[in-house]
Amino acid sequence: MQLTEIRVAGFGGQGVILSAIVLGKAASIYQDGFATMTQNFGPEARGGACSAQLVLSDQPVLYPYVTSPDILVVMSQEAYAKFSPELRPGGLMLIEQDLVRVSSIPVGTRIYGIPATRIAEELGKRMVLNIVMTGFFGAVTGLLERDSLRKAIETSVPGAFREVNLKAYDRGFDYGLQHVKNGALSSSELEAELVRE
Amino acid sequence: MQLTEIRVAGFGGQGVILSAIVLGKAASIYQDGFATMTQNFGPEARGGACSAQLVLSDQPVLYPYVTSPDILVVMSQEAYAKFSPELRPGGLMLIEQDLVRVSSIPVGTRIYGIPATRIAEELGKRMVLNIVMTGFFGAVTGLLERDSLRKAIETSVPGAFREVNLKAYDRGFDYGLQHVKNGALSSSELEAELVRE
Repeated sequence: MQLTEIRVAGFGGQGVILSAIVLGKAASIYQDGFATMTQNFGPEARGGACSAQLVLSDQPVLYPYVTSPDILVVMSQEAYAKFSPELRPGGLMLIEQDLVRVSSIPVGTRIYGIPATRIAEELGKRMVLNIVMTGFFGAVTGLLERDSLRKAIETSVPGAFREVNLKAYDRGFDYGLQHVKNGALSSSELEAELVRE
Repeated sequence: MQLTEIRVAGFGGQGVILSAIVLGKAASIYQDGFATMTQNFGPEARGGACSAQLVLSDQPVLYPYVTSPDILVVMSQEAYAKFSPELRPGGLMLIEQDLVRVSSIPVGTRIYGIPATRIAEELGKRMVLNIVMTGFFGAVTGLLERDSLRKAIETSVPGAFREVNLKAYDRGFDYGLQHVKNGALSSSELEAELVRE
């Protein structure tokens, strides 16, 4: 596993941190990697923004801060506005497509969208949107094994919510596989998707 | 709020991370401070150890790593063995007293113990031991306001578990107030407590 810098961002209550913890656990506990997860709390957190910085590597991670992520996961418009400029050129952005309107796509950036909240609502539990997003992340990035992510989810959520979280994971992963097959959204396709809402 | 470095450590499943998140949120969202929380995942995590590094400050936190904590919260013997040597001289250690046997107390170190797991079990939910511990932390350190910690818990746990977590918090806080009144455990008192088990 090459050193990979990731930021997961959204608003409070979306489960941004759990999502980052699951990715870190999958890499380090269920695979052979190392990971750090850093959360900054500050005035911006009082506005409801929430973000986690994650570094995955096959070596111990010496510097846990992420300044120019390879992968950016955004679940709110505010998070998109704040963090999309810092995405590494050629980086990958995953968005909650009902909550984020993409204003421009820098050349070389790949963007994939998923209606994670809607899928979570179909499962009867809006709060699992973060795990839908995590499944989507797994399929699109191919960075972690499907099964290690699954185990990380199983051991990170309360027993009463395990089943719905695993369903959410599978739905997100399958949706992602579909999108990988179809390729990343181009600027025009994305607009078409956004207009369809 | 002076810059305070804290490590919370235990084994996986004890809710170490949630406990650190609650402290960070209380400082930053419900009070005027800043906080970072960093979690390292690595081979030691595969052994079940789990630790979070937390920095609280009235200024933005520039360096999130904790090398010599002012406060160490330990909920397992393994965590105690690993992290107690790094406690700052004159620092404060909070232990889950049924799970941690203290071998020696460096001069100037204050140690307070609470049977957090037993209290959590009395409430019918072993998994809230981390929140009992958080209440205890609040009372003993006086670092954060009782009400901001409470709000941080309310907004960090799933609705179905809110009530039992708030009860756990109050139980831990009240137990802590009692201990603060009685003063920190000395070496001999601690041994007496440990022998009583």
